[in-house]
Amino acid sequence: MNIGLSFSTNTRFCAVIGDPIEHSLSPAIHNAAFRELGLDYVYLACRVEDLKGALQGMKALGNFTGLSITIPHKIDAMKYVDEVDPVDSSIGSINTVIKEGGILKGFGTDGPGACRAVTDAGFDMKGKNILMLGAGGAARAIAFTIASNYFPGTLTLLDLNEITAKNLANDIARHCSFVPQGRHMNSTGLAQSMEDADLVINCTPVGMHPNIENTPVPGGLLRKGQTVFDIVYNPLMTRLLKDAQKNGLNIISGADMFINQAVLQFKAFTGIDAPVEVMRKVVMENLVK
Amino acid sequence: MNIGLSFSTNTRFCAVIGDPIEHSLSPAIHNAAFRELGLDYVYLACRVEDLKGALQGMKALGNFTGLSITIPHKIDAMKYVDEVDPVDSSIGSINTVIKEGGILKGFGTDGPGACRAVTDAGFDMKGKNILMLGAGGAARAIAFTIASNYFPGTLTLLDLNEITAKNLANDIARHCSFVPQGRHMNSTGLAQSMEDADLVINCTPVGMHPNIENTPVPGGLLRKGQTVFDIVYNPLMTRLLKDAQKNGLNIISGADMFINQAVLQFKAFTGIDAPVEVMRKVVMENLVK
Repeated sequence: MNIGLSFSTNTRFCAVIGDPIEHSLSPAIHNAAFRELGLDYVYLACRVEDLKGALQGMKALGNFTGLSITIPHKIDAMKYVDEVDPVDSSIGSINTVIKEGGILKGFGTDGPGACRAVTDAGFDMKGKNILMLGAGGAARAIAFTIASNYFPGTLTLLDLNEITAKNLANDIARHCSFVPQGRHMNSTGLAQSMEDADLVINCTPVGMHPNIENTPVPGGLLRKGQTVFDIVYNPLMTRLLKDAQKNGLNIISGADMFINQAVLQFKAFTGIDAPVEVMRKVVMENLVK
Repeated sequence: MNIGLSFSTNTRFCAVIGDPIEHSLSPAIHNAAFRELGLDYVYLACRVEDLKGALQGMKALGNFTGLSITIPHKIDAMKYVDEVDPVDSSIGSINTVIKEGGILKGFGTDGPGACRAVTDAGFDMKGKNILMLGAGGAARAIAFTIASNYFPGTLTLLDLNEITAKNLANDIARHCSFVPQGRHMNSTGLAQSMEDADLVINCTPVGMHPNIENTPVPGGLLRKGQTVFDIVYNPLMTRLLKDAQKNGLNIISGADMFINQAVLQFKAFTGIDAPVEVMRKVVMENLVK
């Protein structure tokens, strides 16, 4: 099917904006999905410095339907949309904007994308002990989403900066009816936290290309029955996931979260369930193995 | 070639904005031309009410390269671009905006598109007597362009509203080193003006669908050797052009002007000479015969 022939005055378009933007996989993923379903949509990429102008443009340009937002605009974008999902207001950043009835609505997919990857893997977070490593932007979104919607037993947040970990725990406690623990990610804190953890989520960049031999969790701390989720997707199999797999643990890759984020955006952009396997194929072909 | 597969973070895009916009042929014409040359471009259509927001968006969104502007925004658009071609400033409207080095540059194609259709037909306007019927927006652009660049012998502007005709003649005299005549388009004025005319350009809507049996020039006034150009392109062969052809005169159709406008915009958007025949084919297939 040649979608090129179908361009018309009805063609809707979406875009990813950020700076830089040339390495984004989003155009490849979403255009493949549009083609698969024969939708009259196209997905573009735009380097943007003037975020306010870009969002005003989205609002003014009919058929400009959806937007993915990446670094450095995920925080400031909240200022220029008309509505933000309450949980995303608490998180303090968004990465998706849709236009409905001329209104720009913002929300984030880090938390929902991660949680969907966990549930897709057959792991029910209800009543379980969840350990998160790192308390930065992605961890913040994921922890808020877990605390808001998934009824964990305990939620422990470790960070090399103890204040960051405790602040995030306090923020969550203030906004959600759930109180996480914030602790220092030193060897003692890590070892103690690993003993009880049912699900470990790495939100630190440790193990990311090119430092692929590093891991945030010494292999000896992994225990049978644990599920290990690494949001790093470059490489697809991090040292942490390899160690976990070697020990017979369940693993969830960053690619699963990444794909689920695109799936959630696609549904928001089009109102139609995404062709997941087509999107997965594009991601797998393009991510560094 | 499936241009759909080539979408990338480098894909540039252009759009036509206006309100309404659903009947625009521009997406079909330009996308066919992009495909023909294998260019990584896509052309969209956007209904726009907030013109300022749309142009701010164009400026902010990287890869948003070119814009066609149609009713009702051709006059106001001049306020929101950074530079306007001097002749277009005098004309008072633009229908094209390109972004170069982050700067929005505006210009019009009505005049250049019409004049190129005339020269393409082998008619050299230098020293010739040119009669224009109608003194509205399109006539204004064409008359300014002829007076500025084509060295006619005489240029006579007729309009049902004598003041409109005289005002346009005075405006041109003020801005260009050329003085046209503005006259009332009654039967006497028309008959007298037709006697001397080498080139007659109809810029009135007379003869446009559905009133296709009407003509601005009674057939008896047409003289051997004249060239007749009707900017109306719906129908392709107006009553005026049919009468002229029947009398053995040279004719130029509104479609020729329309195609040349698209050709000029394409060159401005891409820097590459347009595939004229591909664009002509799309126009001919889509215009009401």
